[in-house]
Amino acid sequence: MKTYAYAAPSGDQPLAPFSFERRAPRDNDVAIDILFCGVCHSDLHTARAEWGGSQFPCVPGHEIVGRVTAVGAKVGKFKVGQLVGVGCMVDSCQVCQSCREGLENYCDEGFTGTYNGRDRQTGGNTYGGYSDKIVVREEFVLRLPEGLDPAAAAPLLCAGITTYSPLAHWKVKPGQKVGVVGLGGLGHMAVKIAKAMGADVTLFTTSPGKEADARRLGADRVVISKNAQQMKSVAGSLDFLLNTVAAPLDLDPYLNALKRDGVLTLVGAPAEPHQITGFGGMIFRRRTLAGSLIGGIKETQEMLDFCAEHGIVSDIEVIAIKDINTAYDRMQKGDVKYRFVIDMQSLKDEVAKAA
Amino acid sequence: MKTYAYAAPSGDQPLAPFSFERRAPRDNDVAIDILFCGVCHSDLHTARAEWGGSQFPCVPGHEIVGRVTAVGAKVGKFKVGQLVGVGCMVDSCQVCQSCREGLENYCDEGFTGTYNGRDRQTGGNTYGGYSDKIVVREEFVLRLPEGLDPAAAAPLLCAGITTYSPLAHWKVKPGQKVGVVGLGGLGHMAVKIAKAMGADVTLFTTSPGKEADARRLGADRVVISKNAQQMKSVAGSLDFLLNTVAAPLDLDPYLNALKRDGVLTLVGAPAEPHQITGFGGMIFRRRTLAGSLIGGIKETQEMLDFCAEHGIVSDIEVIAIKDINTAYDRMQKGDVKYRFVIDMQSLKDEVAKAA
Repeated sequence: MKTYAYAAPSGDQPLAPFSFERRAPRDNDVAIDILFCGVCHSDLHTARAEWGGSQFPCVPGHEIVGRVTAVGAKVGKFKVGQLVGVGCMVDSCQVCQSCREGLENYCDEGFTGTYNGRDRQTGGNTYGGYSDKIVVREEFVLRLPEGLDPAAAAPLLCAGITTYSPLAHWKVKPGQKVGVVGLGGLGHMAVKIAKAMGADVTLFTTSPGKEADARRLGADRVVISKNAQQMKSVAGSLDFLLNTVAAPLDLDPYLNALKRDGVLTLVGAPAEPHQITGFGGMIFRRRTLAGSLIGGIKETQEMLDFCAEHGIVSDIEVIAIKDINTAYDRMQKGDVKYRFVIDMQSLKDEVAKAA
Repeated sequence: MKTYAYAAPSGDQPLAPFSFERRAPRDNDVAIDILFCGVCHSDLHTARAEWGGSQFPCVPGHEIVGRVTAVGAKVGKFKVGQLVGVGCMVDSCQVCQSCREGLENYCDEGFTGTYNGRDRQTGGNTYGGYSDKIVVREEFVLRLPEGLDPAAAAPLLCAGITTYSPLAHWKVKPGQKVGVVGLGGLGHMAVKIAKAMGADVTLFTTSPGKEADARRLGADRVVISKNAQQMKSVAGSLDFLLNTVAAPLDLDPYLNALKRDGVLTLVGAPAEPHQITGFGGMIFRRRTLAGSLIGGIKETQEMLDFCAEHGIVSDIEVIAIKDINTAYDRMQKGDVKYRFVIDMQSLKDEVAKAA
């Protein structure tokens, strides 16, 4: 299937139009016409080869919402015309313990990334959602519940599940005190989801200018993390803390903000390590530091249903695909509230105009 | 009550005979004739002022086994003549959430240490188990189950509960793979307890000479932690890992030894921080780093009952109290298998001879 996309030809070139062949749907495949694709920081890091292992050309995009255009003979869960989503994964081994538990994100063999992954059948590079269509095996396709705006729902597929999964795994309950570090794409989803779970939410940010917005999004309290006095005022107060900041932090004041048995979860691995010396504080209050990586398919569906039930979507700025390089520059400066989403009609219009 | 003891007069003097007055039992107090007291590394650190906050004179000792000699009018749980134990705590606020949950070790106000603590009634320094008698409020006295050797059971009151509590809290189950780092006073208890819980036990040590002993104590496998190849061979294999080494370690290879959702628990806070850079490994396998501090009174009683049921005591070397300074020197060199225990008859004989 002829597919139109935007790709980075190399780590130091801007994204530009690119076309390639998607496979025809196999028996267990779903073919999807892409309507919207969110723009994640990982896209930028991979396209600009800031992490190791980028394959080029690189078609980023793993926050995909689209409509089913065809299904393979053995597909039972999806029908032509249905609205669906695809997140960070398009395949996994399906047989290891984690896959059998529905935690494909922790597949022993490593899941196949939606882009910059190694296709398990062809061995080729996978191409993501900055494209007009995609073909994905049924097991990795999500049902988009009714009532969710398709554009604003796209970021749920990565930013949403990345924050929902640790909140759910560590069993955040109504009335508990939850902290969120950072108010970006992930952080603003974490605030909304934690609030919808019934938590009392404290947002930690370095930027006093974000306070009003944090409150609008659902935060009950905003702590300016550079203010030692404010940090001290929340010591020992939180049941759960989600650090959405991938930059290296001094984790000690955050660990110290936890109650006994409190959990600080990291969802972004910094290039340079976090600082941590407060092992005594962990021991004396039985505190826990944990990691979490996106989420499994089963819990991604649960998250979508949860978001539909609570009317949660991402705050987005819709862009045309030709503006993706500008969007990257703005994203790097933190100049987006809170997620860019590409309207893929803009790509289809470009293709039609060129034809 | 006139009490004979050994005390450190200051941080740079050896322990020597010392006498002082214990309070007469109050209504809720139990008076105990001390039979045995274990020698913990904390005793040495405190007596030699290696940690901040040592009060002198210092009478160490928080692994106490003795016999009840008197009970206050309102004591209901203990009778004269009964064998009992006292561990690291002799008091706490009794009203905070942790105390109400039986986790006095995490008391919001801080528990009162058996020695070098601040008496909650008099404000004075508490004196520990290197003495012939002690008076403790009923809530902090443990019942010593029948069948446990009183001398070898003494170290259960600190080394036992410190290792039992995290294994129980993180719900180690039969068949699970548990690692223990370090084969000292704590580590040898952890091996025995984890084995009795039905786990498959891997002991990590820097000393190849400890392999045979580790196996005798119950380890199914010994990994020489300086051997990168051996460390690599256990990567991703453990459900739970208990680090009993308080010296700073590079935690990365230990985190890496855990399965998905595996937990590395620290029970000793190093003076210099542990090294940890493997936050990515925590995220990509949802691994957890946790702290744990001794245990609550309720679970200490559970631990004693568990040990009696499984015939677990500490491997000990019984000493006379006059040899305590030599024992400290040997302990500092790791020259003890695995815990010194003072036979308090040696103190009583000294006192009788001097009289």
